[in-house]
Amino acid sequence: MSEVWLNGRYVAADEARIGIADRGFLLGDGAFETIRAETGRLRRWPRHRARLAGALGVLQIAPPDWVAVESAARRLAREHGEAAVVRITISRGEHGPGMTAPPGEPGTVLVTARAMAPAPRVLNAILVRDLRREPTSLATRFKLTQYADPLHARRQAASVGADMALMLSSSGHLSCADSASLFWIEAGGRVATPGADCAALNGTARGALMLACAEAGITLDEVKAGPDALQRAEAVFITNAVMGVVPVARVDDRSFDADHPMLARLSDMERAAE
Amino acid sequence: MSEVWLNGRYVAADEARIGIADRGFLLGDGAFETIRAETGRLRRWPRHRARLAGALGVLQIAPPDWVAVESAARRLAREHGEAAVVRITISRGEHGPGMTAPPGEPGTVLVTARAMAPAPRVLNAILVRDLRREPTSLATRFKLTQYADPLHARRQAASVGADMALMLSSSGHLSCADSASLFWIEAGGRVATPGADCAALNGTARGALMLACAEAGITLDEVKAGPDALQRAEAVFITNAVMGVVPVARVDDRSFDADHPMLARLSDMERAAE
Repeated sequence: MSEVWLNGRYVAADEARIGIADRGFLLGDGAFETIRAETGRLRRWPRHRARLAGALGVLQIAPPDWVAVESAARRLAREHGEAAVVRITISRGEHGPGMTAPPGEPGTVLVTARAMAPAPRVLNAILVRDLRREPTSLATRFKLTQYADPLHARRQAASVGADMALMLSSSGHLSCADSASLFWIEAGGRVATPGADCAALNGTARGALMLACAEAGITLDEVKAGPDALQRAEAVFITNAVMGVVPVARVDDRSFDADHPMLARLSDMERAAE
Repeated sequence: MSEVWLNGRYVAADEARIGIADRGFLLGDGAFETIRAETGRLRRWPRHRARLAGALGVLQIAPPDWVAVESAARRLAREHGEAAVVRITISRGEHGPGMTAPPGEPGTVLVTARAMAPAPRVLNAILVRDLRREPTSLATRFKLTQYADPLHARRQAASVGADMALMLSSSGHLSCADSASLFWIEAGGRVATPGADCAALNGTARGALMLACAEAGITLDEVKAGPDALQRAEAVFITNAVMGVVPVARVDDRSFDADHPMLARLSDMERAAE
């Protein structure tokens, strides 16, 4: 039986339980990271740890013992082979009713792992226009356990046979994919991606790719652009921590070059970047 | 020991557990209602049930056995005396990893109750400007288990000694309080409240009061108004399912008439309304 790590102890997955007063369950009051692990090594652990620490800081939940969390994540990842997906979930834990809870207390800390499924070679996407992402919301600025909107966007995509949904910000600008960062390649070779003012999450693969592009002299700009920017793009791709770079072959009725010459290079760069 | 009702069974509260794969815990994938119960009767049960059913519909979670849920809620409420607060929480339940889950399956159904604390006579509030509510988000349209933003607004209020936070919509219009509907009374007696286009939740007490005002010939309009509308208001109040009408005596540095002649009448009307 597969194990998980819950509040400092290894527990069989199907025996691991949390209390019904856990505010993660009652109020979405928590944050998480999904991390790619390779032969038990956590990819970009400093980036994931920093982002999760940022979320816990704003939520005023005490940080966990990071060394113990990393150690548990690596052990669980190794049990799932060469390529695994680790998820670290930290909620505020159990408290009484009401809006407030004592700040700075340790929460519920859960680490799980599973074998990684192969990433798709390309994706087809739809653009969801009626479910906007607000840049000031904590749920767009941090990776919180509050995914109703992306999940709903994904349901809309699945209902028309697409793999993923792209979303807009409150102001109608391109924001991100339902579970990934969004990029496009313009004629001339500039790479563009929405920034925080468009409610884009600071993705770990996104951050690594931006740094790698800066080092390689490839122009990658954070932009505030409407959906028409995709109409003018030569290629579109997404990144996330698990899948790396994946070309988007289609958004609604518009096709893109999934074999654009820059895509292979960007994919290699993302793979090599920390 | 206090009991709760979890997936059809009465369980001691401190023994009630959910699995760590529950998507309510992992993704905020659920909805809830907080209901005032009086001598075991659920106030405005049809309104609460309809709103929760609407949330489950959009989330594509199967509705529970409403008769059994109401029965359990009433039994638990009676154990907490004449005035109790019931919470019904329904999440998608346990599913494997990934964004998608089979639609239309029954979820985790939790009913809890507690004794009601007396409502405050008046509240002091702050207006939070940097945490906007997006009208298209499922979390503003339905009462989802995703409260990070209101909880954060409340922390900001508490940090300056205020009781509650008022919030703005993405477009900068008055929206609601962190856990209540917002109203103000203008010179001349018109009552105003933000509408759905300002990311106001369709509160049950709000709905009841709007209907009662319409029947009594009191003008109560849904408006799209900036924060300056409060500067011009004679009185401000909030409503929620548990507390009913509560005057707001102060928003930031501006004081309001907490004994405005219309407040007592509106409070009586809310109490009498279904």
